[in-house]
Amino acid sequence: MSGAKKDERDYAEVQAKLYNIAEEIYDSIDAVQIPHMSLPSRTKKNIVFNKQHHVWKYGRSRTQRTAKDLNGAYTLLRTLYMIDFIGDMISQQKSSTLREMYYISEGWDMAKFHDQDESNRLAEDLEIVTFSMREDFKLRPEEDGARVLGNLTLEEKNRKGIKKRINCRDDVGDSGYGIPYNVERDKIKFIDSDADFIVAIETGGMFDRLVENGFDEDSRAIVLHLKGQPARSTRRFMKRLSEEQNIPVIVFTDGDPWSYRIFASVAYGAIKTAHLSEYLATPTAQFLGVTPSDIVNYELPSDKLTDGDVNALKAELTDPRFKDGFWQDEIKLQLKLGKKSEQQALAKYGLDFVTDTYLPEKLGEMGF
Amino acid sequence: MSGAKKDERDYAEVQAKLYNIAEEIYDSIDAVQIPHMSLPSRTKKNIVFNKQHHVWKYGRSRTQRTAKDLNGAYTLLRTLYMIDFIGDMISQQKSSTLREMYYISEGWDMAKFHDQDESNRLAEDLEIVTFSMREDFKLRPEEDGARVLGNLTLEEKNRKGIKKRINCRDDVGDSGYGIPYNVERDKIKFIDSDADFIVAIETGGMFDRLVENGFDEDSRAIVLHLKGQPARSTRRFMKRLSEEQNIPVIVFTDGDPWSYRIFASVAYGAIKTAHLSEYLATPTAQFLGVTPSDIVNYELPSDKLTDGDVNALKAELTDPRFKDGFWQDEIKLQLKLGKKSEQQALAKYGLDFVTDTYLPEKLGEMGF
Repeated sequence: MSGAKKDERDYAEVQAKLYNIAEEIYDSIDAVQIPHMSLPSRTKKNIVFNKQHHVWKYGRSRTQRTAKDLNGAYTLLRTLYMIDFIGDMISQQKSSTLREMYYISEGWDMAKFHDQDESNRLAEDLEIVTFSMREDFKLRPEEDGARVLGNLTLEEKNRKGIKKRINCRDDVGDSGYGIPYNVERDKIKFIDSDADFIVAIETGGMFDRLVENGFDEDSRAIVLHLKGQPARSTRRFMKRLSEEQNIPVIVFTDGDPWSYRIFASVAYGAIKTAHLSEYLATPTAQFLGVTPSDIVNYELPSDKLTDGDVNALKAELTDPRFKDGFWQDEIKLQLKLGKKSEQQALAKYGLDFVTDTYLPEKLGEMGF
Repeated sequence: MSGAKKDERDYAEVQAKLYNIAEEIYDSIDAVQIPHMSLPSRTKKNIVFNKQHHVWKYGRSRTQRTAKDLNGAYTLLRTLYMIDFIGDMISQQKSSTLREMYYISEGWDMAKFHDQDESNRLAEDLEIVTFSMREDFKLRPEEDGARVLGNLTLEEKNRKGIKKRINCRDDVGDSGYGIPYNVERDKIKFIDSDADFIVAIETGGMFDRLVENGFDEDSRAIVLHLKGQPARSTRRFMKRLSEEQNIPVIVFTDGDPWSYRIFASVAYGAIKTAHLSEYLATPTAQFLGVTPSDIVNYELPSDKLTDGDVNALKAELTDPRFKDGFWQDEIKLQLKLGKKSEQQALAKYGLDFVTDTYLPEKLGEMGF
């Protein structure tokens, strides 16, 4: 990833960047200097708003990692092994899970990781230092991608290199098209869609409800299941689809503070992946509901806020991602109500209420 | 489900059985008797081995539910409302999640459920009393079905009633075919497969590994992701595929007591769904690994057994599902070793070891 405009992933370039790190370390040793690596400090304080991309990213504060102490030396050694492993995968057109890489390190002698958090963190460090994504390194998580259903035609290049056109409504079963872990341009191309918007849905039950009720056809929508806090591949897929096909994203979740964070990670990016925000975030995404106002207006079945919920809401009041008037009003209302509701609570009025009444009313308010 | 031979689901028959319960309650009241319902007691003690189907099922012990006390009366009232709701769904060709049904009960006045456990349990009771499956009631869980990849052609009737042939290797993306929540004959027909066996895999990482390495083609296998403890639709899909196409099921999981339970639920059924064992269990399924012997033979990276692991292993030693020599030996060995391993630990020897060496060796031992 050498900038947001890149069309095909250039693995040779990624490889070169990684080998460059190894070379610098070698050169230091060769010049009888203590080798080191410099990287941005990954703390909340060092997250700043990027006005160009409308996302949150790491700022200028940096930390040094040197071989002066034993831990630092081990980390640099692990870095070299990991660079070697990733370079080999790129050459051999293989990929591995983060968990597999952790086990692979069993063969790295003194550079063996103690736990997977350690190897995951180092992979993230390499992303930051090389301005790449772990997908560029052929590394992938355990997590599953989400499902999509609607009149969207895409072309997927499968593992054998064969390009296949798939319509995400007519060519797949009712469980939809499964988003693969790699959704970059070398793997997936969006061909065509007549959709007016994408509805990104938190729960599988509500996804299946909209599919069963034919909401995608009746309302010209692409229905997408976020599966709770969405995986990177899901966020990247939405961002690309929204930008390349010019289709707005509407987020439909439960009405509680944790769901608002799902919206924030779709729209603005997550702190853990702030170095990739302009790749993963869709700043034009809009929140549809369930809002605290909906709990009142639709008299939804609700549960009491727990202490954890209240604390999360209070934290959101001061979170820059929720600083606009809409969120401030809604969060304050929710704290006053002391209640939260799930999206499936709309079933109180029957199985068709959500598609016949709730969504049309809310979409109308939003100008769709 | 009026017997294992039924080909098409007869919703009218299910409806009739449900309405029959309502009629009996009505007749009791009409005859100035206290209405009641009789159902098998759902305890571990009342689980017996069914020699005909080679699965574990409920025995003859029964409990009575009567309107003599207030709680019993409420439960019978809820039963009537639920029967009415399910009957309506069948008439209208709709379905709902268990969670939606819980919220629907908001409109049932005094019969409203206090929590979803209550409504789930009542749905299970109705399954038992009517010898039906909750799929017959148009009820479905939140859980996602699993993914399948391999040379299997099936026909899915989609939500619009259109039948579509899908090859689970050539017509889908690399994330495979998503198993829908309804996998009965009215929804899915298996057309053809040249596979020698089905490998049912616990983790997504290992599923993706076998797919990337082309194991399905090289070894004529259907690769299936169990997603941990498999959903009912996944178990039913495997059972039908294995029996109708005569393809054996091989289970490949982590090497710990919880994974052995995944195998047991695939092969023998789970206690929670003992009333459906002959529908969900595949008694011919065989366990491939990771076995405690594998931990020794392949010198796998391992973790120490926790106290919870040790207790679970000891419970398995006396569990009738693990009473054969193979399991007794392996479980005793594991208790002696004090270790467990994950399937991805095989990556210690590189990314191809599992498909080039481990699986061929183990399958050879099993006679494949």
